[in-house]
Amino acid sequence: MATKGRWRTALAYGDDDSVVIRGYSLGELVGKVSFAEAFLLLALGELPPPGHARTFEAMLVSVLDHGIVPSSIVTRYLASSGTPIQAAVAGGILSFGDTYGGACQQLAERLVHHRQLIAKGTQTEDAAAHAIVRHFFERGEKVPGYGHALHPEGDPRVPRLYAIADKNGVTGGYSRLAQAALGLDMGLDWQIVRALAFIPRSAGLAVHAVEEMKREDGWRHVPNDEIDYDGPPLRPLGRS
Amino acid sequence: MATKGRWRTALAYGDDDSVVIRGYSLGELVGKVSFAEAFLLLALGELPPPGHARTFEAMLVSVLDHGIVPSSIVTRYLASSGTPIQAAVAGGILSFGDTYGGACQQLAERLVHHRQLIAKGTQTEDAAAHAIVRHFFERGEKVPGYGHALHPEGDPRVPRLYAIADKNGVTGGYSRLAQAALGLDMGLDWQIVRALAFIPRSAGLAVHAVEEMKREDGWRHVPNDEIDYDGPPLRPLGRS
Amino acid sequence: MATKGRWRTALAYGDDDSVVIRGYSLGELVGKVSFAEAFLLLALGELPPPGHARTFEAMLVSVLDHGIVPSSIVTRYLASSGTPIQAAVAGGILSFGDTYGGACQQLAERLVHHRQLIAKGTQTEDAAAHAIVRHFFERGEKVPGYGHALHPEGDPRVPRLYAIADKNGVTGGYSRLAQAALGLDMGLDWQIVRALAFIPRSAGLAVHAVEEMKREDGWRHVPNDEIDYDGPPLRPLGRS
Amino acid sequence: MATKGRWRTALAYGDDDSVVIRGYSLGELVGKVSFAEAFLLLALGELPPPGHARTFEAMLVSVLDHGIVPSSIVTRYLASSGTPIQAAVAGGILSFGDTYGGACQQLAERLVHHRQLIAKGTQTEDAAAHAIVRHFFERGEKVPGYGHALHPEGDPRVPRLYAIADKNGVTGGYSRLAQAALGLDMGLDWQIVRALAFIPRSAGLAVHAVEEMKREDGWRHVPNDEIDYDGPPLRPLGRS
Repeated sequence: MATKGRWRTALAYGDDDSVVIRGYSLGELVGKVSFAEAFLLLALGELPPPGHARTFEAMLVSVLDHGIVPSSIVTRYLASSGTPIQAAVAGGILSFGDTYGGACQQLAERLVHHRQLIAKGTQTEDAAAHAIVRHFFERGEKVPGYGHALHPEGDPRVPRLYAIADKNGVTGGYSRLAQAALGLDMGLDWQIVRALAFIPRSAGLAVHAVEEMKREDGWRHVPNDEIDYDGPPLRPLGRS
Repeated sequence: MATKGRWRTALAYGDDDSVVIRGYSLGELVGKVSFAEAFLLLALGELPPPGHARTFEAMLVSVLDHGIVPSSIVTRYLASSGTPIQAAVAGGILSFGDTYGGACQQLAERLVHHRQLIAKGTQTEDAAAHAIVRHFFERGEKVPGYGHALHPEGDPRVPRLYAIADKNGVTGGYSRLAQAALGLDMGLDWQIVRALAFIPRSAGLAVHAVEEMKREDGWRHVPNDEIDYDGPPLRPLGRS
Repeated sequence: MATKGRWRTALAYGDDDSVVIRGYSLGELVGKVSFAEAFLLLALGELPPPGHARTFEAMLVSVLDHGIVPSSIVTRYLASSGTPIQAAVAGGILSFGDTYGGACQQLAERLVHHRQLIAKGTQTEDAAAHAIVRHFFERGEKVPGYGHALHPEGDPRVPRLYAIADKNGVTGGYSRLAQAALGLDMGLDWQIVRALAFIPRSAGLAVHAVEEMKREDGWRHVPNDEIDYDGPPLRPLGRS
Repeated sequence: MATKGRWRTALAYGDDDSVVIRGYSLGELVGKVSFAEAFLLLALGELPPPGHARTFEAMLVSVLDHGIVPSSIVTRYLASSGTPIQAAVAGGILSFGDTYGGACQQLAERLVHHRQLIAKGTQTEDAAAHAIVRHFFERGEKVPGYGHALHPEGDPRVPRLYAIADKNGVTGGYSRLAQAALGLDMGLDWQIVRALAFIPRSAGLAVHAVEEMKREDGWRHVPNDEIDYDGPPLRPLGRS
């Protein structure tokens, strides 16, 4: 068990008349730093270089919303059921799993592992790239983050992001290994990479929830003629 | 039931080579609009005036994180249990209910109701303010959004936000009625007001989840000597 | 704020070598009481009369699963996204809101209110029934729990449940007022009525999650030709 | 993507006047089968032998509730925040992750893998047991399901369950390999093993949610003097 009744954090604290984030008064941050800067400060402990903040802002915008996709479908089913908006959005966020929106996290973990080997001089970048591809192929999986089911010709947001990252000096050791790793080049932990998709998407999901509540009546459902039952045919129970 | 197998949305769509948000190509938005602008575009249908975007950005920063509070406590318990980060953050978001972080929504609903009466000329602003206070007092509740358990002297983020909103021309009919209503003065639906707290907080919760995973071992628990059991004392079942 | 670092409960406690529920050793309960009895013990504080346990068991079975419905649709979308089973089932449970599976709770609250008036002698059963119907009609709602979207001729599970409840001596003051109130006649709080649907359904949802994982490849999605976008047509951003 | 607008299931279906589970009319099942039997029917496709149902019933009772533990702590924080009961219970279920309540699933996966090798004759039971222990030790983990943080002397529910399982003819090839595998010996998938804990616990969590709502005022919080902040000390932002 982790704690004996005490909590500790290096992130932030609040008392009667202030909130302090990584040493800075929140009252002073409000209006003087962007949301992207504030997030990187919270996650990394220091305010980021301006180019990092600009690139991170672009990353947030790039995943804000994607229309009717699994995460928004879940949120809209929930909103139509009369559950409150915090539950409808939370349900949509749950969909950022290993297969759908969160797959980049498995890649990020591999990237961090191989960058350490490269840093120690025990592996070349080329060998690392091969090892990563092999790692996923051996498990019968595609390389996470490469190949988007909705964008067979390549995700249109990626080249735009890389142009911004290059111009802002973010592209580094990770990004040479693989796209999808800009967050790592900013110093973020691989464990948070998946959240870089669902944090901004939570905003999109909230708007979907409200659109569903305002435009659609009653609870959403699949019509019976779109459901195939292929279990056992009707049979008697034979108990009295 | 809401739909017969079809989905409709005015928010966004994606096809093989693009994503379009409210008519604008996402590829074009990335790097040219801030996250605050992009959100207001998605929610309202048009790009906001610059002053609205600046104020909204300040609102996002003002609720990014608050340290160890109920939402982050839930997220950290979940992160320590070995559930993935999307579930740990979703759990924290569930805490934005009627009592804790989401109380402003009930107020927003009342504000919209009374603004309509004021607009029709059937109620004065003064009478509306009285009616709203009475509405909550009759239910034995305090006015939501007024009086923060952690900040008995007043939430230190509020005057800072209002200074920014005033300077940027956001403060309007709603804000004269009550603080906490800047979102309504930007044209947002009252149904999304609660989300204005948990969207940015989702970012704070993700950082808490990672801090918990990296700094604490095993699952978090309350020590037995902090738990009082006051149910029936031990008794025999008396069944064989 | 509710507590000052201490927890209290009258439900159960565990120590190094035992778990005790409402005074009974869990080790003694296991194998000697049914799940229905154990739940009623936990919720009510005492073991229930045998007829109550039998009726409650029937209630659990009656809502175990309903095939492809909103709750299982949400669970299956989540399971197909690679999120773990606890998150897929939790997401499905979130759908038991005011409109879909949880509507009976609003009715239960009204029933408790009017039963108190009847008990005080200030309202007849007849007047109470009228008041309850009026309460929902005035809000433009149907009476919750009456009329199931999938069963326009009446929910086939209800008469069967009532036959069991009558035979087992459960049907009482609440059930005379309205169907759907058997739980109240057993002494349960109205606040838990909604959970009587999602507790057994959590079992159904877990089986749906596993069927989705085993029978379907990749993440579930709606085909593009079933989505209508009716927002603004494509337009230039006009920023450089 | 998994489907093209159609759904298929072998579990259950509903139409205007009935619900059918694995071929049996739900109306006929209600009152004639126990919840344990109904669940095993849904999960396995056929009604179970009586001894399996009795053992499964005992398993359900054995994890119904455990008092103030991480899952109920999460549920109680959520209930105290004014989020509805379906969200409070869903949040508690999210805690059944790889470290806390759901750890048995990783073991179940390994057991299934090695039972297949044993069945093929390529591994002895003894070698399989060694391989499983080694698998977890090499990852720096303890064997999941063995050793409970609250019960250093052994979980008191386990010998009781095994006595019931032995008497009812459930104990088989899996159980000889390791405790915690009774579900596998009943024919359940390893993917659902974790749910065997959180399905009955959802009932316990619902009772905790209601106890929290009824006994505690306002939202639950940790007192400030139990929180240590060890981030940077207060510092000026230095931006105008």
